Amino acid sequence: MTPRTPGWVLGVDSGGSGLRFVLVRLYGDATVREIAATAADAPVRTGAGGIDADHLLALLRPAVEAAMADTGADRLSAAAIGAAGMASLGTALRERLPAALHTAFGVPPGRLALAADAVTAYVGALGMRPGAVVAAGTGMVAIGTGLGDSGWLRADGWGHLLGDCGGGAWIGRCGLEAAMRAHDGREGGSSPLLARVKAVFGPPAELPGKLYPRNDRAAVLASFAPEVARCADADPVAADILRTAARHILQAAAAVRRDHGGEVALTGGLFRMGEPLLAPLRHQAKKYLPGVRLTAPEGDPLHGAVRIAEELAGGALPLPVDPALLTLH
Amino acid sequence: MTPRTPGWVLGVDSGGSGLRFVLVRLYGDATVREIAATAADAPVRTGAGGIDADHLLALLRPAVEAAMADTGADRLSAAAIGAAGMASLGTALRERLPAALHTAFGVPPGRLALAADAVTAYVGALGMRPGAVVAAGTGMVAIGTGLGDSGWLRADGWGHLLGDCGGGAWIGRCGLEAAMRAHDGREGGSSPLLARVKAVFGPPAELPGKLYPRNDRAAVLASFAPEVARCADADPVAADILRTAARHILQAAAAVRRDHGGEVALTGGLFRMGEPLLAPLRHQAKKYLPGVRLTAPEGDPLHGAVRIAEELAGGALPLPVDPALLTLH
Repeated sequence: MTPRTPGWVLGVDSGGSGLRFVLVRLYGDATVREIAATAADAPVRTGAGGIDADHLLALLRPAVEAAMADTGADRLSAAAIGAAGMASLGTALRERLPAALHTAFGVPPGRLALAADAVTAYVGALGMRPGAVVAAGTGMVAIGTGLGDSGWLRADGWGHLLGDCGGGAWIGRCGLEAAMRAHDGREGGSSPLLARVKAVFGPPAELPGKLYPRNDRAAVLASFAPEVARCADADPVAADILRTAARHILQAAAAVRRDHGGEVALTGGLFRMGEPLLAPLRHQAKKYLPGVRLTAPEGDPLHGAVRIAEELAGGALPLPVDPALLTLH
Repeated sequence: MTPRTPGWVLGVDSGGSGLRFVLVRLYGDATVREIAATAADAPVRTGAGGIDADHLLALLRPAVEAAMADTGADRLSAAAIGAAGMASLGTALRERLPAALHTAFGVPPGRLALAADAVTAYVGALGMRPGAVVAAGTGMVAIGTGLGDSGWLRADGWGHLLGDCGGGAWIGRCGLEAAMRAHDGREGGSSPLLARVKAVFGPPAELPGKLYPRNDRAAVLASFAPEVARCADADPVAADILRTAARHILQAAAAVRRDHGGEVALTGGLFRMGEPLLAPLRHQAKKYLPGVRLTAPEGDPLHGAVRIAEELAGGALPLPVDPALLTLH
């Protein structure tokens, strides 16, 4: 880590489950985590213009101001905001947040980072080491870098209709499809998964009416992924879904590896599924990621945002900047 | 066909592309198609309560009244309305349409049929013969019956997130996923499909922002299916997508066949794709539908609705009634 001056830094994670932040105090080499707080339990709004910068500010600013007042922080030496959708829907954030945060919290120019959640996931998992990270929850994205000016490589993360192959919504959708096949008497169906559909959602024929009108369809699909894991031990259809999910995950990791060392970290809620997914990941890693160690993450994306802010406070960020993935302001 | 009395009958098809109807005059054994008209070019609205009966009536009633005035029809001997979503979203239609149509057009009690679009597709394709029909466009559903009191068997038709396997949205989604794999450098990608994505949608990284905010996402996915067909001759990934689609279609047909004779009709816009899909269908039919002839449909779902109304005017409908698929009022 680069040398640092004392001061306060802010890390923010804006994701599907809400808006969280951590305020830390730096003393030379030590970091003291002073306050970790939730600014909102629901996601920041997204409209036709992308992520709503005013909504994010309205949620974040009073909560951070209160935290700074509590701890006696008068200004921030650096801040990093990681947001889901930053890469494709972050235009308004990049246009409006910098001036607002410089004014509100005294963040000096060049010490504010706006990052895609894939980048904060990467840093949360690997810190400032080169390598590759797979971040998987409802979705799935792989990201890798050799640091410095090597740039970022990204694979998948295209959402539940274009990819996110092997993520929670993907696994859940495959499980629901196999259940409906069994319901219809089509080949390739799974009776155990059909039984789980009945237990979780009720009559299978009513499932379309429950799913399609909702706005959080990907989350509904992902909610069935643990049921697939639960069935995998005894049901070959469920086991095959997870084996295929593991293959997709490993293929995405392979696409972002270049020659960034022998480590791929697996981060995100999907991997809490445990052995039903981890076993086929380990088994097929020999084929798709020869010579690579699959590792657990050091921390989560919020931890990654704080880590980026700490580096910025020290004056130098060893990560590649990128117009979609990581910008400094 | 059962003997018929002279009179006027109405057939209606309510689908994704709009609301169409045909008014025909019966003379003993002859049927004269008097007026075929479009009542609306956009689909009937669907709300939290299902298909909006008031909206359908507001579109249909003045158009049919004008057609009846033009032809001198004073009342209808029978009517049949086929609607997409009738099975899962047709509660309001079944509650509100019968009284309105009896009053407005003088349809006698018992001579109004409300049918799922799968049933009108079936009758349009096979008439009153037993058998099985696959109806495929954006979606895909298979339906079969032995007539009389044998009931209906239905397979798939669960929509683009739960099935419709092998339909237009399914094929398009697989094609887009293969394109994004090539974009990322993941295994299993298709460069020809990636080139088509660039030509049709522009920069691949901007595709999520163009797709997810739309309400007609399944139609957007399906719009890419012809590109998959176009690539299938030279691209093994595209060919494999269509081979798998054909397998799903045949498996759905097999699930609804029981022993309903040796014919499965393929109806709907998907099959206009031609040889890229029809060749793998014929090739795999030997395995999944041994002894079965795949046939072209006699007519479309609107033709099927008229045919149902004609049978009702004769006093007896040889099709099984079913609370979700076909009700008489």
